[in-house]
Formats: sequence, C-alpha cells, structure tokens
Amino acid sequence: MSKKRTKLGMSPGSIVYTGKRGVEKVFIHTSSYNVDSIEETVQNNKEKIILETPVPGRITWIDIRGVHDPELIELIGKQFDVHGLILEDIANIDQRPKYDEFVNGNFFVMKSLSFNNETIGIESEQVSLFFREGLIISFQEAETDLFSSVRERLMISNGRIRQRGTDYLAYALIDVLVDNYYVLLDDIEHNIDVLEERIIHNPDKTIKTSIHHLKKELLISRKSISPLREAISRFSKSESKFINEESKIFIRDLYDHTVQVLDMVESYRDTINGLQDLYLSEISYKMNQVMQILTIISVIFVPLTFLAGIYGMNFDILPELHWKYGYLYFWIFSVSILVLLLWYFKRKKWL
Amino acid sequence: MSKKRTKLGMSPGSIVYTGKRGVEKVFIHTSSYNVDSIEETVQNNKEKIILETPVPGRITWIDIRGVHDPELIELIGKQFDVHGLILEDIANIDQRPKYDEFVNGNFFVMKSLSFNNETIGIESEQVSLFFREGLIISFQEAETDLFSSVRERLMISNGRIRQRGTDYLAYALIDVLVDNYYVLLDDIEHNIDVLEERIIHNPDKTIKTSIHHLKKELLISRKSISPLREAISRFSKSESKFINEESKIFIRDLYDHTVQVLDMVESYRDTINGLQDLYLSEISYKMNQVMQILTIISVIFVPLTFLAGIYGMNFDILPELHWKYGYLYFWIFSVSILVLLLWYFKRKKWL
Amino acid sequence: MSKKRTKLGMSPGSIVYTGKRGVEKVFIHTSSYNVDSIEETVQNNKEKIILETPVPGRITWIDIRGVHDPELIELIGKQFDVHGLILEDIANIDQRPKYDEFVNGNFFVMKSLSFNNETIGIESEQVSLFFREGLIISFQEAETDLFSSVRERLMISNGRIRQRGTDYLAYALIDVLVDNYYVLLDDIEHNIDVLEERIIHNPDKTIKTSIHHLKKELLISRKSISPLREAISRFSKSESKFINEESKIFIRDLYDHTVQVLDMVESYRDTINGLQDLYLSEISYKMNQVMQILTIISVIFVPLTFLAGIYGMNFDILPELHWKYGYLYFWIFSVSILVLLLWYFKRKKWL
Amino acid sequence: MSKKRTKLGMSPGSIVYTGKRGVEKVFIHTSSYNVDSIEETVQNNKEKIILETPVPGRITWIDIRGVHDPELIELIGKQFDVHGLILEDIANIDQRPKYDEFVNGNFFVMKSLSFNNETIGIESEQVSLFFREGLIISFQEAETDLFSSVRERLMISNGRIRQRGTDYLAYALIDVLVDNYYVLLDDIEHNIDVLEERIIHNPDKTIKTSIHHLKKELLISRKSISPLREAISRFSKSESKFINEESKIFIRDLYDHTVQVLDMVESYRDTINGLQDLYLSEISYKMNQVMQILTIISVIFVPLTFLAGIYGMNFDILPELHWKYGYLYFWIFSVSILVLLLWYFKRKKWL
Amino acid sequence: MSKKRTKLGMSPGSIVYTGKRGVEKVFIHTSSYNVDSIEETVQNNKEKIILETPVPGRITWIDIRGVHDPELIELIGKQFDVHGLILEDIANIDQRPKYDEFVNGNFFVMKSLSFNNETIGIESEQVSLFFREGLIISFQEAETDLFSSVRERLMISNGRIRQRGTDYLAYALIDVLVDNYYVLLDDIEHNIDVLEERIIHNPDKTIKTSIHHLKKELLISRKSISPLREAISRFSKSESKFINEESKIFIRDLYDHTVQVLDMVESYRDTINGLQDLYLSEISYKMNQVMQILTIISVIFVPLTFLAGIYGMNFDILPELHWKYGYLYFWIFSVSILVLLLWYFKRKKWL
Repeated sequence: MSKKRTKLGMSPGSIVYTGKRGVEKVFIHTSSYNVDSIEETVQNNKEKIILETPVPGRITWIDIRGVHDPELIELIGKQFDVHGLILEDIANIDQRPKYDEFVNGNFFVMKSLSFNNETIGIESEQVSLFFREGLIISFQEAETDLFSSVRERLMISNGRIRQRGTDYLAYALIDVLVDNYYVLLDDIEHNIDVLEERIIHNPDKTIKTSIHHLKKELLISRKSISPLREAISRFSKSESKFINEESKIFIRDLYDHTVQVLDMVESYRDTINGLQDLYLSEISYKMNQVMQILTIISVIFVPLTFLAGIYGMNFDILPELHWKYGYLYFWIFSVSILVLLLWYFKRKKWL
Repeated sequence: MSKKRTKLGMSPGSIVYTGKRGVEKVFIHTSSYNVDSIEETVQNNKEKIILETPVPGRITWIDIRGVHDPELIELIGKQFDVHGLILEDIANIDQRPKYDEFVNGNFFVMKSLSFNNETIGIESEQVSLFFREGLIISFQEAETDLFSSVRERLMISNGRIRQRGTDYLAYALIDVLVDNYYVLLDDIEHNIDVLEERIIHNPDKTIKTSIHHLKKELLISRKSISPLREAISRFSKSESKFINEESKIFIRDLYDHTVQVLDMVESYRDTINGLQDLYLSEISYKMNQVMQILTIISVIFVPLTFLAGIYGMNFDILPELHWKYGYLYFWIFSVSILVLLLWYFKRKKWL
Repeated sequence: MSKKRTKLGMSPGSIVYTGKRGVEKVFIHTSSYNVDSIEETVQNNKEKIILETPVPGRITWIDIRGVHDPELIELIGKQFDVHGLILEDIANIDQRPKYDEFVNGNFFVMKSLSFNNETIGIESEQVSLFFREGLIISFQEAETDLFSSVRERLMISNGRIRQRGTDYLAYALIDVLVDNYYVLLDDIEHNIDVLEERIIHNPDKTIKTSIHHLKKELLISRKSISPLREAISRFSKSESKFINEESKIFIRDLYDHTVQVLDMVESYRDTINGLQDLYLSEISYKMNQVMQILTIISVIFVPLTFLAGIYGMNFDILPELHWKYGYLYFWIFSVSILVLLLWYFKRKKWL
Repeated sequence: MSKKRTKLGMSPGSIVYTGKRGVEKVFIHTSSYNVDSIEETVQNNKEKIILETPVPGRITWIDIRGVHDPELIELIGKQFDVHGLILEDIANIDQRPKYDEFVNGNFFVMKSLSFNNETIGIESEQVSLFFREGLIISFQEAETDLFSSVRERLMISNGRIRQRGTDYLAYALIDVLVDNYYVLLDDIEHNIDVLEERIIHNPDKTIKTSIHHLKKELLISRKSISPLREAISRFSKSESKFINEESKIFIRDLYDHTVQVLDMVESYRDTINGLQDLYLSEISYKMNQVMQILTIISVIFVPLTFLAGIYGMNFDILPELHWKYGYLYFWIFSVSILVLLLWYFKRKKWL
Repeated sequence: MSKKRTKLGMSPGSIVYTGKRGVEKVFIHTSSYNVDSIEETVQNNKEKIILETPVPGRITWIDIRGVHDPELIELIGKQFDVHGLILEDIANIDQRPKYDEFVNGNFFVMKSLSFNNETIGIESEQVSLFFREGLIISFQEAETDLFSSVRERLMISNGRIRQRGTDYLAYALIDVLVDNYYVLLDDIEHNIDVLEERIIHNPDKTIKTSIHHLKKELLISRKSISPLREAISRFSKSESKFINEESKIFIRDLYDHTVQVLDMVESYRDTINGLQDLYLSEISYKMNQVMQILTIISVIFVPLTFLAGIYGMNFDILPELHWKYGYLYFWIFSVSILVLLLWYFKRKKWL
C-alpha cells in the first residue's frame, strides 16, 4: 500500500495509480455510432494517442483499458474538460463505488468482481464511466475487455442500443458488470454447497479455513456491492439532463438486480454462519466421540487389571490361587466383566 | 445455474426461462366476466393459441400455467403491448418479488411457497401478474392451479369479486398466495415444535442437521417474503389509475398480513437460534456427563489397584502377607474404599 | 391450527373463529351514559340478543365477551354498519395488533397478556375495539371481564371518563390492557431474579430449560407489544373526526407507556442472554472442575502404583527388598509423594 | 413492585409514589431572582407549606426534595395549574425519561445516576422539571441536593444564569445531571480497566459475576440515557414559547453531550463483550492446560508401569531377571523413557 | 480523569484542558495570503503573543499548537469574538467530533489518529478549526505539525489553495487528517494480516490478547470516525454563508472518503471477529488433538499392562508361565497388540 501513502498530503485531484495491474500497453477502443452507422478504431500505441472529437448527431464511446498512466488520464481530462476529482478517482483503484453528477457530465465508478478458482479468491477490477450528451468514456483497469457483449450488440444496426443515448449505453455497461455479479455469486454458492456436503458427510480440519475464506470473499463482495446499490439508486433517481426519462425504467430494473445481488450476499453470509455453527458442533461432537471411545477402552481394562493385580498378591493364604481351575475361572470372570461392560455401554449408546 | 449464465451479455428484455419446471403442456385458462355473466375457456394446445381480446365492460383474466416457452410469452407481449422488461421477468424465475407500474399496466411478481414434507424442503414457484383496466394476465410456473379458490368465488354471481375491477382480482390472487404462507409457516412451526420436544427429551446427533435445514428454510422464506412486503407496501400506496380507492382497504389488509408473516418468520428464527443454544448445551452436558461417569469408574479402581500392587510386592518383610485373614482384610478394605468413594461422589452429585 | 387452514381460499371478510377459547355463553354488557346518568344491562341469552341503538347525547358501550360465534358478529356488523374486514379480524384471534380507520368508525385490536404461574407460560387473549361518535363496541375473547376497573370509574358521576367521548373511553380500555403488561413484566422480572439467584448460587441442569422458556415468553410478549406500539403511535397521530384534540395528550402518554414496556422487554432479553452466558460458563466451569479433581486423584496414584510395581518385580538382585525396614520406607516414600503432589496441586490452585 | 400493582386500574392522573426513598421531611427550597437581586427561602415544615407566587420580572425556582407525598404534589398542581398527567409522572419514579410540552408549561423528567462503590451498583434517582415563563419547579426524589453547584452560580450577580430565563435554568439543571453521567461512566470505565487487568494477568472464577454485574449496570445506564437523548433532541428542536432562541445553542451542546455519553455506554458494552470473550478463552485455555499437564504426568508413568509389570511376571524363563545388573538396567531404561518423553512433550510445546 | 471531574458543576463555557499533552511552549504559526503573496510568522514566546488582525482581501490562518493554556484560548476568543462553547470544546479534548455553525463562524472539531507501533496502540490528538470569511484558526493538541503538507502547497503561488477561501483551506486541513486515517487503517490491516498468518500457521496463546487489542483499536477508531462522518455530512450540506458552492464538490468527495474509511473499519471488525472464531476453533482443535494423542498413548498401554498383570499372577496352575518360549510369545503378542491398535487408530485418523 505504499502508493496510497505517497498520495498523502498531495493536493486533491492529483492523479496517482494505486493498483498493481499496470498493463503493458494501453488499449483505446473508440466507437462512433448513430442509428445508421458505426465506426470503430483501436489504438495501443502510446506515443501518438489521437482522441476523437465527438461529432454532433453521433455518439462517441471511448473505452480505455489500462489506467496506470497519469499523463494519458490528464490528457483525456484536458481534451474533454473532465473535473480533476474524477481523474483522481479513475486512477485511484481503491475507490468506493459511487455515482456523481458534475456540470458537464456524470461519473460512475464501480468494481468488476470475478471468482478465481485457482487462488480461490475474488479478483477485483475497477471500472469507471464518464458520460454526457454524445460522449461516453469508460476506463477498465485490466487488459481483458469486459464489454465485448455490448460491443456485439452495438453492431446490430436496428438494436435498441443504437437508437438510444449515452445514458442507455452507460446503463448497458453497468448492467454487464452487475450480471457478472450473478456469475460470481453462482460460483460462491457452488463453493458453499460443496462445503455443506463436506461438513455433513466428512468434516475435517481444513474446513475452517475454507469457511474463513468464503466469509472473507463475501465481505469483499458486500464491500463492493453495498455502495453500488446506493450509487445506482442515485443514478435511477437522477434529475440530470444527460439522462432521458425512457432510460429510467431500465436503470430501476438494474437497481432491482443490485438489491437482489445484495440480498443474495447477505443470505450467503447467514448460510455460512449457519454452516460454521454446524461444522463446529460436528467437529466437537466427533472429537468428543473419539475421546469417549478411548476412555471406554481404558475403563473396560481398569477392573480387569485390578483383578490381575489381586491374583498377583503374595498373601500366604489366598485360596483361589490354589484352585485347580483358578486360572480358567479368572479368564471366564474377566471376559464376563468385559462383555458386561461393553453391553452396558452399548445399551447406554455411549459406544 | 447454467441458464442464468447463458443470459449474460444478452440485451435487456431477452426472454429466457431460467427454471427447471418446464411443464409439458402450457395451459391457458381464460375467464371473461362482468356482474351479470362469466365465460370460461381452457386451451392446452400450443399450436393454435388464441388469445382473447378484452371486451369493454367485461374483465378478461388470462391465466397461463407454464412460463418456459419464450415464444408464447413474446406473443402475449405483442398482442397486449406488454413492456419487454416485464416479459423478461416473467420467464426469469429467479426474480425478486416486486411491484412495478408501467404506462399501460401494473406488474406484480412474487413467489408461492409450500412445504414439501417428503424432501423436508420448501418448494418455490414464481407467479406474475400483469393487470390494467379490463385485463389481467397471470403466469404460474407449474401445472397445478394455485388459483382454484378464486375461480370458485368468481362463479358466484353476486360475489364481491364479480362487482369489482381487475385491481380487486389482482388483490384476490395475491391474497391466495399470502394465505399459503400461513400454511407454510404452520408446517414449519410444527417442525419446530417437534424439534423442541426432541431436544428436551431425547437430544441426539441428527438434530443439528434438522436445525440447519430449518434455518435454511426460514432463510428462503424470508428472502421471498421480505421483498414482498415492500412490493405490497408500494402496491397499497400506489397512485396508479388502474387501482380504485375502494380496493385500497383490502390491499392494506393484505399488507398487514405480509407484515405478520414476516414477523412470524423472524420470531421462528429467534426460536430456532434459542433451540440451537439449548441443543448445544444439552448435548455438551450429556457428553460431559458420560465422560464424568467413565472417569469416576476409573478413579474408583485406581486406589484399589494400588492396594493390590502393594501386596504384590516382594519385600522380605511384609507382615500383612502373613496374617491369617490378610486376604479377607484386603477385600474388606477394598470394598470399603469403593463404597466410600461412591458415597462421596454421590453426595457431591457427580454421579 | 386446522381452523386457520379452513380459512384458506375464503373470500376476504369471512368470519371464522380461529381460537380455542369458545366460551359457553356470550355475555353482552351494555352501558349507556352521559354526564348525568348511566344505565347498564347484561345479557347472556343467545337466542334473543337485543342490541341497543345508540341514543344521541349518550354514549353506548357494548362489551361482548366471547367471539366464537360468527352469527353474532355478523349481526353486530349489520346493525351498526361495520366493515367486513373488521368483523373478520375480530373473530380471527391470530390478528396482529393494529389500529385502522374506516369511514364510519375506528378499529383497534390488541392482545391482553397475563402470566400463568402454573403452566409458567403467557396467556394471550385478543381484545378488539370499534368506536365512533356515541358508540363503542369492545370484544373480549374470554369470559373474565378485563374492564371491571373502567366500569367502576364509569359509575362515579363526576369522573373525567363520564365527561368525555368514546375516544377517551377507548383510550381508557387500552390503558387497562397496557397496565396489565406492567404486571406481566413484573412477573417475568421476578422469574429472572429467581433464575439469577439460582445460577449464581446453585446452577443445575434444569436452568437451561427455564432460560429457554423465559426467552420464549419474552418473544411472545414482544410479538404482541411491538406492533401495538406502532398502532398506538398511529392512534396518537390520528386525524380522525372521532378523536378529540384533548384526548391526544392521554394517548401520547399511553404511547410513552408502550415504549417503556417494549424497552423493558428488550432489556429483559439482554439480561436473559447475559444470564445464559453466565450459566453456560458457570456450568462448564463446574464440570471442568469435577473432571480436574477426578484426574488429580488418578494422577496422584500413578507414581505410587508404579512404585508398588517396582517392588513387585522378580529380579534376582533387588536389594531394597531385603532391607529390614524396606516395607516401612516404601510407605514413608509413598506418603511423601502423595503429600508433595497434593501440596503442589494446592499451591497451583488446581484443587 | 406492589405499589405499581396498586396503581392498576386507577384513572390516569392518580398520584401514587412508586419508589422506596420516602424522605423524612420534604425540603422546599425557593429562589426568586432577577439580574439585580436574589432571595432564598428554605422550608421543611410540612404542616405550613407556603408556596410563593411568582412575581413578574423575577424568576421563581421552587426546588422540592421528596416526592413521596401525593398531597403536596396535588397542592402544587392546583396552585400552579399543572396538568394531572405531569403530577402522576412526578410521583411515579419508574417513569421513562421524556420531554413534553403542555399549554402552560414544559415538563422534563430524567434520572440522576451515580455509582455506589460499596454495593457495586448504580443508584438511580428521578428528577422532574416543570417550567414556564417566570416559574420553574424541580422535584428531586432524595434528600441530597443535586443542584448545589447551580445554586452557587446563581449567587454570582453578573453570571450568565441570572441574566437568562427559566429555559436556561432548566438547561443548567439538566446539564448538571448529564455531567454526573460522565462521572458514572468514569467509575464504570475504571471498573472495566481493573477487570481487564485481572483477566489478562490473573483470571479467576469471580470474574464472570463481575462481568455480569457490569453488563447489568450498563444496561441500566442505557435504559436511562437512551430515552434521554430523544427527550433532549425534542427539547432542542422545540418551538415552545417558553424557550428562547439564544438558549438553543446550549441545549444543542447538551444534546451533543448526551450523544457522547450514549456512545460511551455502547462502546463500553462492546468492550465488556470483548473482555468476556477474552476471559472465557483465557479460562478455558487455563483449564485445558491443567488437564493437559495432568494427563502428561499420567502418560509418562504408563510405559514405566508396564515395564515394572513385565518384570513382575512369573515366567519360568525370563532371562533379564537373572542378570547381575538387571535392576540397575531397569532403572536406567525407565529414567531414559521418562526423560525422552519429557523432552518430546517439551519440544512439542505440550508442557 | 480527575480533570474531567473538576469541570463538574462549572458553568458552560468554562475553559479547562482535560488532556495530558501539555506542550512546553505554545507555537503560533500565522500565515496571511492572497493569490499574489503570502507572509508567515512563527511565535512561541508566550509572554508577548501578538495575534494578527485579519486584513480584508487576504486570508489569515492562525495555527496554534498546544491547547493546554486557558488564558491564551480566552484571549483568542475575545480578540476574534468566538463563542464560549467553542472555546470550551477546544480545550476539552474528550470532545466528540462535530461540526457547528455559529453566527460569526463555523466550528469543526475532530481527532487525528495514528498508530504507534511501539505501544501497539492508537494515539489520538484533537484538532479544532474555526473559520469565517478571511480568518481561519486551527488548534492542534501536540507539538508536531500535522499540516506541513498544506503549508507547502500554500507556498506554490498558482496553486488552487491560494485562489480559494477559508472554506477550501478548512477542507484541505480536514482532508489531511482523513488521509491519515488511511495510513492508520493500513497499519491496522497489516497487523490483521500478520495475525491471520499466525493463526493459520502457528496459533499460540498470545494471539487472544492481540485480537483483544486490535478490537479495542478499531473501537477507538470507530468512535472517532463515526461522528466525523455525520459532521462532514452536515458540513457538505451546509447553507452557511462562509462556504462557497464550488467548495461543496470537494467536501462531498471528503465525505465519500470518510464513508469509505468507516466501511473499512466495519469490515476490519468483521474480519477480526472471523479471525477470533478461527483462532478459537484452531486452538481448541489443537488442544483436543494433543489430549487425544496423549489418551491414545495411555490406551495402547492399557491392554499391555493387563497382560503383564496376568503373567504376574501367582496361580498354582498357570500353564503359559512354564512354556519354554512363554516370555517370547508374550513380547510377540504385546507388540502385535500395539501395532494393531496403532494401525487401527491411524486408519480411523485419530492419530
């Protein structure tokens, strides 16, 4: 977190990339479209970045992959007149999801979360959107394109997305990320189900770390989704001039999805807590069971050893020792005690 | 959950059935009524679906059982001019209960829950309603008709339901589902009572999975009922032109029921948590009790074994060995110790 | 709960008694009063119920004890023009406490709770009130008269209650029930104090069921009182024409009492949870203490038994066996070990 | 709580003292002041109570110590025209802290709490204030004067308190009681610190009752302070004609203090819960540790006893018994096993 | 806390320093600047404090380090006409963070928190700000200058801070302190990570005190940050004439940061609670494991000792004793039992 510390004391609006995902080359994917036509250009040559100027009557979508380069962000800021605090938030990937409205554009920042099955952890990537009439700029932290499905839909000339404004495109982009949350939770639910299976049928020592990791992941998810709900709520109630009334119904739908996702996170948390209780009582039951069985083995031999001790005594007069079948009787008696005790413990359900 | 994943990246309004309850034949049950008369038609022939056109002065209720067929839903959407997001929600059976108002109709989606005593689990079915002046369309996921009681009431010519509009019919349909929640909670309460009985009188190992299952079921119930309360609250406060003022009092009554149902769920959760505490302390008490008894058995024999050890020693001079009644005294002494210890442990209430 | 199930699918407003307290004879106690005079009549002859018609300038209070008879309730509904939903709520004794305003009267339903020291449980009785200008109808589920104290106050000609309207009488009746909650909580507090005493001085096995029962009772209390607070809050803020401004100050006072009662319930819950923690740690401490003492007894004899074992060995050359005072030394040594161990365990505070 | 029960069924406004602190003589301390002069009179002769009539242009503060005498309270009520519900609340010392506004005066009731180091419990005393233009009446339950510091400040002729109205005096009196809460919490914090010290360095059996008592005390504090916050909040936002705008800033400051006090109570609760967790794990660790050491002692002797048992066997041919140094070797071997086991357990950190 | 007690009963507005950080010399750092120029003076000579008079067109920032001197604070109060309650709050370092608006200036008080790695505790310092048009006075409790980074930014002639008013400077100062919270939480997170590492790989006894300390620190953090959020919220929504609309966007950004910091605190609390659960189950697992192994060792020798006991018996007829290879067979049998038991326990995973 040293980068965060270097930001200390800097004046607000200072652009510092606080993440670790510096991509090698920044990709800039520009789409300019209206109902009739669409043009796409892709650049990844840092030296000669040419940022298209939005043309009236067309929507320009500039998608930038890689936010580690302060100069580029500053350049974008200058060319499109973006507020310094926005630029700072784009580069500061520890940003809390939020929605803000500025004089010349609205700003949305959120997290794209995905489950990494190898590290069994959540991977988080910050995505920011800035949009106004005719222009939308999106920032992705990593190289992989999260928005390919939207791009495909844009290609269809009579699709709804081509007929609407930047607010609808912004909605569509956020919608993709919220849809990814369902996949994430699907993965987490799968892990919870596996865990439940294991706890009920084969509780072992490693489960408690699995529970701990799942709890942590849900904590991370909630930390990203809970403020997102607020942000989308504000988005859906916005009075901004850049948002058309017809788009509102979609944003409200998006809001419903976020609420549902958050509900799911909460209910998974409850489930995991319940599983933890179950696991703890299962494991403690099992351990006690083992101790009980071990103790019973000891206890069974205790009177037998005492018996052997008796006939090891050296009293001058100890009649049993001189009986013809003394040793045989001893064994018969010993085995009887053993059987009796086993039967008794069995009946008491201690075994 | 693979179907959910196939929905990823699709444009909003895409109709994909996400459930597993594809019914064999879709039933379409159409009722057209006013105060004076009622007509009913039933179709389950997919090829030639004829959707009745609402007649002014009459109320048309189209009840569709089976939502797995996107084409049918789309057809309905087109014929009655239903918004794409509604159509999507009808088919997506993972929908969170909600109430929404659109320009040409109001939309209500909720869950019908029932307790399956065989699998000891909750079965959930999604039910959607779309209604406006003169037209109401209901969608049930499964084949069984949840609304038969309403249909019977409709048959009574001077019943209140025949004299009122689609808003009252919508209320009546939702009311049926909320009434079912009482049955569900009744079943759950019965299970809790049985559990309590078992914990107090015969706590055994299987109880913790029973508790776990009940907790899970209550979690599922709450997940369905909690958003429903919100939805009905919005329904009851609606300013929609499709809802008459006289129906409001009934919807408020419905709201009260939902709140009560939710109260019950919460109090059952508390009860189950209390039972879990009780069970854990009961089981731990029992186990400790067993260990204590076993240890006491060991402890009683410890001094006796020591005693036998003493008289097994080979000292040249060990006077007791040569006493005439040495062996008898040994037994008297041993039994005395045994009795004394038992009496002591009894008095201490350790036995 | 079979009665609840029979209600399923019935149209709203169906009057079904869902309780078990069907009284043998319904008592109808009618009081008609103004500042100057008061008349009382009591009927319990079901066949010829005569319901008095309210006289202008006088207040008519009809108190009905026994709500198991749908016909009677329907009769009352018809004669005094009471809404069907109210009639349904009167008979449905699983009603959540609430306050509702209708065109021709206000409706209040709540629970009277009392502690039954024999069954150590809470007894609940539903009480409903319907009042408008000049008329108030109260319904009690059981035969015992909860309102005798109010009736006595009514007898005093210059009492405040005679000078005011039905709103004040309604307040006075609710006030009686809320006062009863104090008695209930007083009883519960007494039980908690007794429990605390027992836990600190003599924690035994039965305490955990006592705790469980107290928790359950508080849960029941809260379930009745929490919605009551809402109801009285709405009552106190009501804009209804049937409620005079001067009565508001009394209703607000009533509201304060309900809040206090709820506070008490919550703090008792906290106290019981604290007591449960205390009990669990006390009982576990005690059990561990017993195990520790038992183990110490075993441990003390372990080296002694080993010692005895040594001198039971049959080595050809084992000098101590041939010492003159060998056996004496053995005892001296054994007792020394015993004393030493006891002293050590004592010093370590393990005993 | 028998007194509370005697109140049951009484009409609202009945004055019944519900406490146990009946003081021997009622003190009535009257101060009449304006900016220029101040007069004080003290009466404790019950027979001839003379209640001063407020003089215009002067502020009359009547401070009454002892609220067990219903007649006196009724007398005050009549002379100064105080509402019956206020009089009831003054005598009913189980009153929840609250602030109410009446036509001819405002009423404030709260608790004065102090920590009694002898009984290690909280002592609670109810204090009520009634004030309007020119008149303020305060009621203290006990004989000790809580307001001496205010009285001293009143003596200073040019003090702020002399220049302001009854609202400021009311504020000053409440402020004194809120300041006392800081002392109370200071005492509780001291007890918590001592407890923490003990838990970390010397956890013993008595701690769990100490924790229980502290929890109880915090519960009592919160029960008094939480409604007080509400009351002062309403006080600070009051639109009453008896409260000047200039006093509002002081009341808001008072509100901030109450919020802080409540924050402190909550954080102490968290701290105590944390300490309880710490104590429980500490005590369980300690007990387990003891059991482990005891078990290790047993375990060490187990193979030795077995060894001794072997050479106590009577086989005809048992060569070791006839070795010259057999006994010596036995000891060497035994001590080796003992040392080895100790070393092993030490290395494993089990000892 | 004796100082707090001395404040009791004092009239509001009494200036008493309640902390322990009395600095030796009070530093007074005055900066007077406008867009064009900046002048700085530093004084630490108590005798001749000269407080600069604000000059129109310039902003005067008086930064005072050391608030233990009531006279100085009173002097400042008089010269700049600051309300008595503000002066009291400046010296009372147990103040809850808050934002208040007065007629002639706004007041902000908050805590600067830093992690002390040596004492492993949080160090808290109170910082207060009073600002109005053209004048800002800041108070730091300790000698170290928290605002050096702001001072540096002020030096840059064309920086944003020089072009804006006292509201922006106030924002900048608060921003520095909020930035410090990130550092604090960074340190806490580092400690949590270390703890997690230790719990998973090497859980030992000291961890529970570490957890306790971390919990305490987070409690302290929350106590400072939670009211700060409220304060900044009020600051950001202020209608005060001393705050320009353009600064609002920055204050809202600050608010977002505070919310994020609070989120982090809450999620760290959750994490620590999770770690505590993990630790407790880990430690209990480990202890049980040890006990299990120890018991298994005992149990293995129990039948062997019995066997040795048998052949130590003195029966006249005990054939095995006279076998030629009796002793050898005994050993073979003993070792077989031992191996068998070990194999059995291994297979059962008890070892």
